[in-house]
Amino acid sequence: MTSPIDPDKLDKLGQVAIKVGLQLAEGQDLIITAPMTAAPLVRRITEHAYKAGAGLVTTIYSDEEATLARYKYANDQSFDRSAGWLYAGMAEAFRNNAARLAISGDNPMMLAGQDPEKVSRAMRANSAAYRPALELITGFDINWNIVSYPTPAWAKLVFPDDSEEIAVGKLADAIFKASRVDNDDPIGAWKAHNANLKARWTWLNGKRFSALKYTGPGTDLTIGLADGHRWKGGASEAKNGVTCNPNIPTEEVFTTPHRMRAEGHVSGTKPLSHNGSLIEGMYARFEGGRLVEFKASKNQDLFNKVLDTDEGARHLGEVALVPHSSPISASGILFYNTLYDENASCHIAMGQCYADCFEGGKELTPEQIQAQGGNKSLIHIDWMIGSDKIDIDGVNADGSTEPVMRGGEWAMAV
Amino acid sequence: MTSPIDPDKLDKLGQVAIKVGLQLAEGQDLIITAPMTAAPLVRRITEHAYKAGAGLVTTIYSDEEATLARYKYANDQSFDRSAGWLYAGMAEAFRNNAARLAISGDNPMMLAGQDPEKVSRAMRANSAAYRPALELITGFDINWNIVSYPTPAWAKLVFPDDSEEIAVGKLADAIFKASRVDNDDPIGAWKAHNANLKARWTWLNGKRFSALKYTGPGTDLTIGLADGHRWKGGASEAKNGVTCNPNIPTEEVFTTPHRMRAEGHVSGTKPLSHNGSLIEGMYARFEGGRLVEFKASKNQDLFNKVLDTDEGARHLGEVALVPHSSPISASGILFYNTLYDENASCHIAMGQCYADCFEGGKELTPEQIQAQGGNKSLIHIDWMIGSDKIDIDGVNADGSTEPVMRGGEWAMAV
Ligand SMILES: [Zn+2]
Ligand SMILES: [Zn+2]
Ligand SMILES: [Zn+2]
Ligand SMILES: [Zn+2]
Repeated sequence: MTSPIDPDKLDKLGQVAIKVGLQLAEGQDLIITAPMTAAPLVRRITEHAYKAGAGLVTTIYSDEEATLARYKYANDQSFDRSAGWLYAGMAEAFRNNAARLAISGDNPMMLAGQDPEKVSRAMRANSAAYRPALELITGFDINWNIVSYPTPAWAKLVFPDDSEEIAVGKLADAIFKASRVDNDDPIGAWKAHNANLKARWTWLNGKRFSALKYTGPGTDLTIGLADGHRWKGGASEAKNGVTCNPNIPTEEVFTTPHRMRAEGHVSGTKPLSHNGSLIEGMYARFEGGRLVEFKASKNQDLFNKVLDTDEGARHLGEVALVPHSSPISASGILFYNTLYDENASCHIAMGQCYADCFEGGKELTPEQIQAQGGNKSLIHIDWMIGSDKIDIDGVNADGSTEPVMRGGEWAMAV
Repeated sequence: MTSPIDPDKLDKLGQVAIKVGLQLAEGQDLIITAPMTAAPLVRRITEHAYKAGAGLVTTIYSDEEATLARYKYANDQSFDRSAGWLYAGMAEAFRNNAARLAISGDNPMMLAGQDPEKVSRAMRANSAAYRPALELITGFDINWNIVSYPTPAWAKLVFPDDSEEIAVGKLADAIFKASRVDNDDPIGAWKAHNANLKARWTWLNGKRFSALKYTGPGTDLTIGLADGHRWKGGASEAKNGVTCNPNIPTEEVFTTPHRMRAEGHVSGTKPLSHNGSLIEGMYARFEGGRLVEFKASKNQDLFNKVLDTDEGARHLGEVALVPHSSPISASGILFYNTLYDENASCHIAMGQCYADCFEGGKELTPEQIQAQGGNKSLIHIDWMIGSDKIDIDGVNADGSTEPVMRGGEWAMAV
């Protein structure tokens, strides 16, 4: 059987990950994490990394079968353990300027059917151990990138009625299209896309709105923006001086909300895939920035448990704008993968904020970020609230408003 | 195609690795390193680890294609880099009592044809970075084990005239036989084998020989033994209180020579596979413990370069006795893998000694070990000097001798 994945486009994806996603610097080490089933993309990325002058490329693979063996056979104490030694090592590497590339493609339903209590404990232990490394990533100490690979398990979930071969081919094509490698000049395509996103966030930064007001079916929510917030999107300059495109694909323009200033209620517009479970029909009510009521038509308890992770889990850490006509939204595919699904829709995130979404954010201490309204949590979970029926207004400091989106599309002239 | 590897014996190998090799303790974390092509064995080992009550099992996979991409595409500076962050993390895990399991099975010829200068630089950088973790392993701070998996590239090297499927099946059978899992009670078989090895080293420890004298074709060598040396073989008690079988298979009884007391010359009896090259027809002459002359009919320069790694590389770190009739020797197979080939023959090792081959070795400082004649180096390279034509005498402090081996077989009555 020949692979249903176009080898030329796969190679271009590897090139885009290194040249656009990371803009890997000469002599820079690279740490990759990936599911074992994504090895073909890891190899293309590794080649492009060395061609670009990488120091050493090290890949840490995960294996779904090994993960499931733990749930099947391990005794109780195992589920509070984590590979702290590995994450501490990664943090050390980042402090020495190693770049970070994650390949997403794990079976989104891998943990479906496992004891949710054990899943939640294992996730919590892992998050706590990963935190020091994650802070160096989200704080943009180094250039980083996430890119996807169409693994068979993921493809069969997205296209359940197709054979594995057809499903992998379809998911590969969707990934290549969304990642802008289905053309002769992917690097040029990303330059144009970054310029368009920059025009949007430049306009938003000029406005300095105090809040955003969302109205639509089941939604009447005002989200205050953090003091000194900064809108971003597309390329980002890391503290090490490298401009990277952390997410491939990306369609969003986003910033940090004020963790104490969300009021009203909001309804989810797409299912949220979380650790192998789909949460559907989401509804949340906020008071003083805190999520005080959560309902869902499916897996309500599971999400409520997530919200109990820590105090910050009930406050907002991100607000992101995505036009309803964006390519991923237009594909009509539910990817069961945040990297894709969040880029199909306006979304908000519970939990940790991005330090870099503040003016001068790279220099701010965690205490300063908190004082300006930034949120802190072990989690960062995006959920989709956009649709073609959502209007969004920017609220000025004097209470006056002006249109940001109408019917899910950009309303500003740039 | 069904796998040519017997799944029942593979599972038993996984069980032996955990129950005999590591004797993994309840709640103990485990770090596995393995080539990606050995994933089927990693999965069996992971299952048995969790069944035995493991904390968290973490596998670090290597990928031959990624390694080769470095040699093909990386620029010069890459070859002095190493994943120090990963090894530092491992050392930290060992200090927190994680056990260590290495799966050997890499293509022994992987680096054949690469620039030897780059290979040597990369190996040196890697050894230096790995050293702190390796010292915790060789010092038996924790229980550890090496076991093998018949990867296709390795199998085709050992059985070049067979198809890949046949070759993998043959190598699998040889591994299963040598690892004593080709029977109904592998754990019982290992108990009996450990008892036999223990009888040999108990006799040798009782004798307290000052030196061993080797005579045979092309060999007339006297190797002084370190002060307070201790013979070992089979099972070992680690400092964490766990008794492990570090090598599976193992046939050797071994101890630490005195690094300043080897005199005479010795001829290799089997080819040595080193980083993808075969060194053949080895001859070495020692004066005052130092290797002062080295010749080989093939790859002499390569081994001379290895001997230049550091001063300790020219001194002995191990002396090991293996009967010529041992199962691996009897198989007649050249495995191109030290774990197997060293167990086919009496051997010596250039470089680092094992601290545990001293009385009270677990408590000795590096300085004390050196004062007693122990050697220190970044390398530890075993080479084979045994055959059915080798006689070995134990030399007492008063110069009298008594037979240890005759015609390559044990000569003591135990
Ligand atoms: Zn987002
Ligand atoms: Zn987000
Ligand atoms: Zn040995
Ligand atoms: Zn050895």
